[in-house]
Amino acid sequence: MKSRAPVLIVGSMAFDDLELPSGNFKDTLGGSATYAAFAASTFTEVRVVAIVGDDFPEATIKSLAARGVRTEGIERAKGKTFRWAGRYDADLASRTTLDTQLNVFADFAPKIPAESASSPIVLLGNIHPALQADVLNQVGRPQIIIADTMNFWIKGEREKLVSLLNRVDVLIINDEEARDLSGIHNIRKAALEIRKMGPHSLIIKRGEHGAMLFDDTGIFAVPGFPLEDVVDPTGAGDSFAGGFVGALAQHVTGEGGTAAGREALSKHARTAMIYGSATASRCVEGVGTAKVELLDTASVEARVLQIRALFELTPA
Amino acid sequence: MKSRAPVLIVGSMAFDDLELPSGNFKDTLGGSATYAAFAASTFTEVRVVAIVGDDFPEATIKSLAARGVRTEGIERAKGKTFRWAGRYDADLASRTTLDTQLNVFADFAPKIPAESASSPIVLLGNIHPALQADVLNQVGRPQIIIADTMNFWIKGEREKLVSLLNRVDVLIINDEEARDLSGIHNIRKAALEIRKMGPHSLIIKRGEHGAMLFDDTGIFAVPGFPLEDVVDPTGAGDSFAGGFVGALAQHVTGEGGTAAGREALSKHARTAMIYGSATASRCVEGVGTAKVELLDTASVEARVLQIRALFELTPA
Repeated sequence: MKSRAPVLIVGSMAFDDLELPSGNFKDTLGGSATYAAFAASTFTEVRVVAIVGDDFPEATIKSLAARGVRTEGIERAKGKTFRWAGRYDADLASRTTLDTQLNVFADFAPKIPAESASSPIVLLGNIHPALQADVLNQVGRPQIIIADTMNFWIKGEREKLVSLLNRVDVLIINDEEARDLSGIHNIRKAALEIRKMGPHSLIIKRGEHGAMLFDDTGIFAVPGFPLEDVVDPTGAGDSFAGGFVGALAQHVTGEGGTAAGREALSKHARTAMIYGSATASRCVEGVGTAKVELLDTASVEARVLQIRALFELTPA
Repeated sequence: MKSRAPVLIVGSMAFDDLELPSGNFKDTLGGSATYAAFAASTFTEVRVVAIVGDDFPEATIKSLAARGVRTEGIERAKGKTFRWAGRYDADLASRTTLDTQLNVFADFAPKIPAESASSPIVLLGNIHPALQADVLNQVGRPQIIIADTMNFWIKGEREKLVSLLNRVDVLIINDEEARDLSGIHNIRKAALEIRKMGPHSLIIKRGEHGAMLFDDTGIFAVPGFPLEDVVDPTGAGDSFAGGFVGALAQHVTGEGGTAAGREALSKHARTAMIYGSATASRCVEGVGTAKVELLDTASVEARVLQIRALFELTPA
């Protein structure tokens, strides 16, 4: 752990209404930037750019700041914060969106504060690809650019998304999204096709089955940690991205440009995958951001050891 | 590799009609014992007990014998060999059974030849649990008993199956079967419940996502090898079992009774899982038994290295 490069995270901050097997939870804290920022701040300095309404509690912004998150990029607009409502099935295997209210998020135009614009690592949370591109236009060339997206943009904004991919070092998507984006069912061929679109590294998340990394070192697979009790899968993907980027930041100095970024990826992306997986598995142990808000390195490190034990050939 | 304990395999031998995305294939060789015997014979001496009709080609029995398989336990009965017909979807993700003709298999009453009865390892392929129990009644107490089963028996012959499980060291099933057998969706809790039914070790196969082992050493996860071209998934599970048991046989001497069997499992089941996975991934590269019939250790070892590379933290 040589250094801790700061990470710029752009995404949504939201309130979620969650119908879970364990009960209904109203107005829980949510949003891709929220989960990712709490997760990444376990490991490094985070700068968040997002938009909230005038109903968003100052206390939450303070709790981010208390974890070393720079919050001056969180714009407070007139109106209501983005809201999402969803219902999970009894096995937490699938979910149905009940309601989406964009509110102030509909007019989100990310403005990157001057200091944040020089962040060596940028995580573009799942927002419109045109906004993701707009963020990149404001930040010059960070050492590592990581992007998330979703089927909604793959289907509806394909051209803008494909154009963005040319500027991205690491794309993080799930297997269904990889199949939709490439038009190929076979996951290995799909990965090859997507990497041709630009991303140096591709991470394909597979829910309870873990995640795979495709890059110039080959293929790496991190198994999903088989939890006895999953409480709420919301935010697992964003927490994975936050944990991944936070672990990676330990190996980025801010010096050496994109070449050093690539070298950090080649050497440390595999370990960072395990940190991402560990962080996500901690997140789903609680409702909403309850667990990820309080995450510390000891808790993540303990889960990292449990995950590594899953592929030890010689049992302890 | 100290020794190579012989393995007794009991199961079905069959003809399959396969409708695959790559074409339709009539009268391909199939059956759980066939796949498992070809697979395991890559590593050790195999004794097969099965039943075939008078339409079954002598050449196939000779090709098993040419791989060191003792075939005197293959009973030739009057009538037709067991037939199965199935259709796979375009992505090979699911299949539909089009026809099942038990034929001579309907009257299968396994008779274990005297020499085979002393085999230190017994693999009970997926047949009626009463027949699996009948095999065990004829063989005394091998050092390691491994059993496969399927939803058909879990639902239809639950009592006989549960009674069998008390006598089994390793149960190999897929995740759907584990959920049905335990009545629990969570895979970790399901595994705990199933191990309470008797099996010392439980292997849960997860298709393209690999397989997990639950035993007294903890949990081990082998990732599925992401093949670029899967030709025919038929027999993957049986080839996994054959490769697993064959690799395990390298570490069983025939001495030391069940205590030595348990020790071999604790020390070597994880590595054997990788051999099972490698063997299965070779099997699905061809139609029917085409690939598994000709399998050699070099081909399996090469895939074992590729699978191990999937979880190397330090890329080569």
